[in-house]
Amino acid sequence: MPVTRLTISYDGAGFSGWAVQPGRRTVEGELGAALETLVKEPVKLAVAGRTDAGVHALGQVAGFPLERSIAPDALARALNARLPHAVRVMSAEEAPAEFNARFDVRTKTYRYRIWNKEAISPFERRYAWHLAGELDVDRMAAAARLVEGKHDFAAFQASGSSTKTTERVVISSHFERRRSDAPRIVYEISGEGFLRHMVRNIVGTLVEIGRRRRNVEWMADVLASRDRSKAGPTAPPEGLFLVRVVYN
Amino acid sequence: MPVTRLTISYDGAGFSGWAVQPGRRTVEGELGAALETLVKEPVKLAVAGRTDAGVHALGQVAGFPLERSIAPDALARALNARLPHAVRVMSAEEAPAEFNARFDVRTKTYRYRIWNKEAISPFERRYAWHLAGELDVDRMAAAARLVEGKHDFAAFQASGSSTKTTERVVISSHFERRRSDAPRIVYEISGEGFLRHMVRNIVGTLVEIGRRRRNVEWMADVLASRDRSKAGPTAPPEGLFLVRVVYN
Repeated sequence: MPVTRLTISYDGAGFSGWAVQPGRRTVEGELGAALETLVKEPVKLAVAGRTDAGVHALGQVAGFPLERSIAPDALARALNARLPHAVRVMSAEEAPAEFNARFDVRTKTYRYRIWNKEAISPFERRYAWHLAGELDVDRMAAAARLVEGKHDFAAFQASGSSTKTTERVVISSHFERRRSDAPRIVYEISGEGFLRHMVRNIVGTLVEIGRRRRNVEWMADVLASRDRSKAGPTAPPEGLFLVRVVYN
Repeated sequence: MPVTRLTISYDGAGFSGWAVQPGRRTVEGELGAALETLVKEPVKLAVAGRTDAGVHALGQVAGFPLERSIAPDALARALNARLPHAVRVMSAEEAPAEFNARFDVRTKTYRYRIWNKEAISPFERRYAWHLAGELDVDRMAAAARLVEGKHDFAAFQASGSSTKTTERVVISSHFERRRSDAPRIVYEISGEGFLRHMVRNIVGTLVEIGRRRRNVEWMADVLASRDRSKAGPTAPPEGLFLVRVVYN
């Protein structure tokens, strides 16, 4: 059967993440329900990244088999008419029958936003980690570079995870700060795959370095340890955005 | 008595505007209540721009007489601890005794945000006017220039207003669109003073031109008419931001 591919944005605040969970409001649950009212049967959704509770998406990608009875543009409009305003199908397109939104991912890019000032702007409070104290972004940027490449990221995996391999490839890991005194600090990481909580655990570790509680080299030590208990705390979900997904 | 000057940001969504109104949640009401718990007496607030219900502010300015018993930084922190998260004192400073936040304004800058795409991003839904149809931004930009200078803006005044004079000076009025296909369109207007609903009525009129219901010259005709019934509809409040205030 042909496959339809959706690019989706969502404000993660009101959701228990992407994946369906009984009794919880999830993005997959909302999207699945909207789809089923249209196609009148259960739909099996594949997704690029199963985001956690409270995490946002600008360009999440989901795919599902669908007979070509509805044109993609009409489908996007019909879905948006049924979805809560916090979830929007930004575009829909036809994909080859063999397209799999989960397994065909080449790279994913995540962004983590920090607001580094005494008072947080009302427009940022839901979309950034508010850190009032001084942060040395140059140190954080130097440490961020140390996770680039192929590494065993076990130290940055959510506790209790059981994945076959904890080796992943990070293509780029860097900070962007427009001016040295700007309150908004943006971290971006692109990679071929990510472990659960990996981005938030890397950010939590970088913030320890930015606060000068640890030095830059500590990042390499944590990575080499493969021990979750060595890394910094998990950064809160509201600062994290799945920005874009690139396919083969 | 010396005067303290506050720079304030607020998300206007949950407020019936700036000015205190009995039985309504207003920004002035919240700020006044927070101040009174600190200084233990009623405080008379002067403000740069009395924003309407639903309108946002990035850099609103308020001033009030205050004995120098509390340092400005400590005052800002104490206020933020008492204010709802949708209102933040971004900075506080001492001002000369003769400073008046309302009457000493040299220029104010407002921004109006439009989202011009079939689906509106979940992150924009509270902060932009969603217009799905095609908009000719070049025409809107040309029409926007026609309000620059000293004019009688009676045609753009809220119906039922009674101000002494409807003459105002607009210093700049222009659009910014990063790429011609970008969904975000940003309009900025700076002036020495504004009538009630003036910015939103100008935007509503510009959108009629952008939709090609009217030509660019119509803007000059509406302005010359001094007749509110000739202008376009009032643009919704959620797209409007008071960006900054410059003082003499």
